Amino acid sequence: MASEFPRLTHPIVQAPMAGGPSTPELASAVANAGGLGFVAAGYRSPEQLRADIEATRTLTDAPIGVNLFLVAETEIDEQALEAYAHELEPVASRFGAPLGAARYDDDQLDAKLNVVRELRVPIVSFTFACPSPELVRSLQDEGITVWVTVTEADEAVLATGVGADALVCQGVEAGGHRGTFEDVDGRGELGLLSLLRLTHAVTDLPLIASGGIADGAGIAAVLAAGARAAQIGTALMLCPEAGTSAPHREALKRPGRTALTRAFSGRRARGIVNDFMCEHEPRAPSAYPHVHHLTSPLRAAARAAGDPEAINLWAGQAYGLAQERPAAELVRTWSEAQQVTSASS
Amino acid sequence: MASEFPRLTHPIVQAPMAGGPSTPELASAVANAGGLGFVAAGYRSPEQLRADIEATRTLTDAPIGVNLFLVAETEIDEQALEAYAHELEPVASRFGAPLGAARYDDDQLDAKLNVVRELRVPIVSFTFACPSPELVRSLQDEGITVWVTVTEADEAVLATGVGADALVCQGVEAGGHRGTFEDVDGRGELGLLSLLRLTHAVTDLPLIASGGIADGAGIAAVLAAGARAAQIGTALMLCPEAGTSAPHREALKRPGRTALTRAFSGRRARGIVNDFMCEHEPRAPSAYPHVHHLTSPLRAAARAAGDPEAINLWAGQAYGLAQERPAAELVRTWSEAQQVTSASS
Repeated sequence: MASEFPRLTHPIVQAPMAGGPSTPELASAVANAGGLGFVAAGYRSPEQLRADIEATRTLTDAPIGVNLFLVAETEIDEQALEAYAHELEPVASRFGAPLGAARYDDDQLDAKLNVVRELRVPIVSFTFACPSPELVRSLQDEGITVWVTVTEADEAVLATGVGADALVCQGVEAGGHRGTFEDVDGRGELGLLSLLRLTHAVTDLPLIASGGIADGAGIAAVLAAGARAAQIGTALMLCPEAGTSAPHREALKRPGRTALTRAFSGRRARGIVNDFMCEHEPRAPSAYPHVHHLTSPLRAAARAAGDPEAINLWAGQAYGLAQERPAAELVRTWSEAQQVTSASS
Repeated sequence: MASEFPRLTHPIVQAPMAGGPSTPELASAVANAGGLGFVAAGYRSPEQLRADIEATRTLTDAPIGVNLFLVAETEIDEQALEAYAHELEPVASRFGAPLGAARYDDDQLDAKLNVVRELRVPIVSFTFACPSPELVRSLQDEGITVWVTVTEADEAVLATGVGADALVCQGVEAGGHRGTFEDVDGRGELGLLSLLRLTHAVTDLPLIASGGIADGAGIAAVLAAGARAAQIGTALMLCPEAGTSAPHREALKRPGRTALTRAFSGRRARGIVNDFMCEHEPRAPSAYPHVHHLTSPLRAAARAAGDPEAINLWAGQAYGLAQERPAAELVRTWSEAQQVTSASS
């Protein structure tokens, strides 16, 4: 059974940011401030996911969401992947790290689905692909609301067709991985406003707007464009509650620009332009999560060494607006500004 | 002396669309409906520009704007340009057209400035570069309001510094040429919402939002994001008053996707993906207006032959929302929807 859009005091959803920034502290701070907190399941073991959800629940009674990767195994260019691994060998050596084993895995989807079912997580969002109608139905039958991340109108049509309860419209402005169902250049690169209006034209589902939203006026804008809520990630990355690494924080505070790249993970993702991206992007194959695993030890070593030039500095296009303030304060400030803007426009 | 933002019945500005779509009929229809009509000076001779302005004035008493190209002569890769010309030879032959002479020209800026001065055009917008403070001042001294097209916050800072009266923020969603001051990959590719908020953070000037706006909710959204008006181009291209060519109209009515390309003109521009773009984009050099002149006869011949696969099908990302309706009807419909949305959000 499809379910209602969750009632939120403020139309603000914390974006799930896998790989560090999302923490129980951040999710609960947003939730306690009247937004919707999210736990990022990506790259965590099922046990870690369980611990994250439980830790978040000790900090808030509000409903929270969990974002799950849906990683389809697709054919990859093995030769290009091998050449890319060869190219990265000296970089890994420089950090005294091995290259990881470039391999497919499904991020332990089934085990994680069991966790969200057992813990009765009220909202699950999927990214990277469209869930099957059976999966959607089975979650809904257990009272779980299902959101699907889309980046094109035709993906919205597919997600509507499988029975999703709501769609997260991820504009090209967004930091981190593109949720595009197929990692093909030029697919899923719509600006958020165009995406919202094109999606609105093909579905009646509630839309959550994501990508480059960083303040109250941005929230007011996406609500005016027809979204029910604004999903915000990068603008929360400098919060003390976020798990953003020290070199990543420093990069977010400096002027710079972002670009889409496959260099770090083998799937297009937006991050602040750095040396690694410039040097390796041209030959990085579309091979996810193979390249993610390949570069993982190298990036961990660079992160530990505090070197921002060899790590994935995920950030949305509006990262220059991110502020070092507690999440609850930001949610309150944004919400006040959004209400003023919405009332006066 | 800097001037006030023009009073408009509706916060809707017709985008100047050089190369055909903009006509005196379109500009006057938008103006008479309470928006701001624009004459596109690009690619027209000074005499044609004068005739366009005069023709528009026989159709409306409302103030209109004129958009001027500011084409800086930059160093280009002559070898790449020559190779590109060689590559296009068979395509030109196929259409029985010669290749044009690949050369720099400034689109007769000075003569066109004289025309707008003589005819006391109330608003002039510039695109492709930042005008000098002297040029801005001299126009303002004659009562002309000066707008500058920007695509990055640092361009907004420059344009504010030279004394512009307002800034046209062109999001990456926009159809046609990027107004980016330097035609460098990755520069000026911000989604409209991010661009508006990043620009708002560095200037107090009024902002006109441009790129992917195609309906009342889109207008309401950019107003909420802080813009004073929405500039709309592609969504007017199917109007009977527009000069959009027949094959271009057909392409706009079909499903498809857009991409940025230098293939047609040597400067990044967004158009509907077609054969010419796919085949030639990878080797098209940054050389504007050289490549524009090179491909001009070829494109004219393809247009005359009704072949959409070899012409520049400029279109914004939301082109799927364009409607075949009179411009006045669209302006009225958008404006009503915008007001309802703004009042209820």
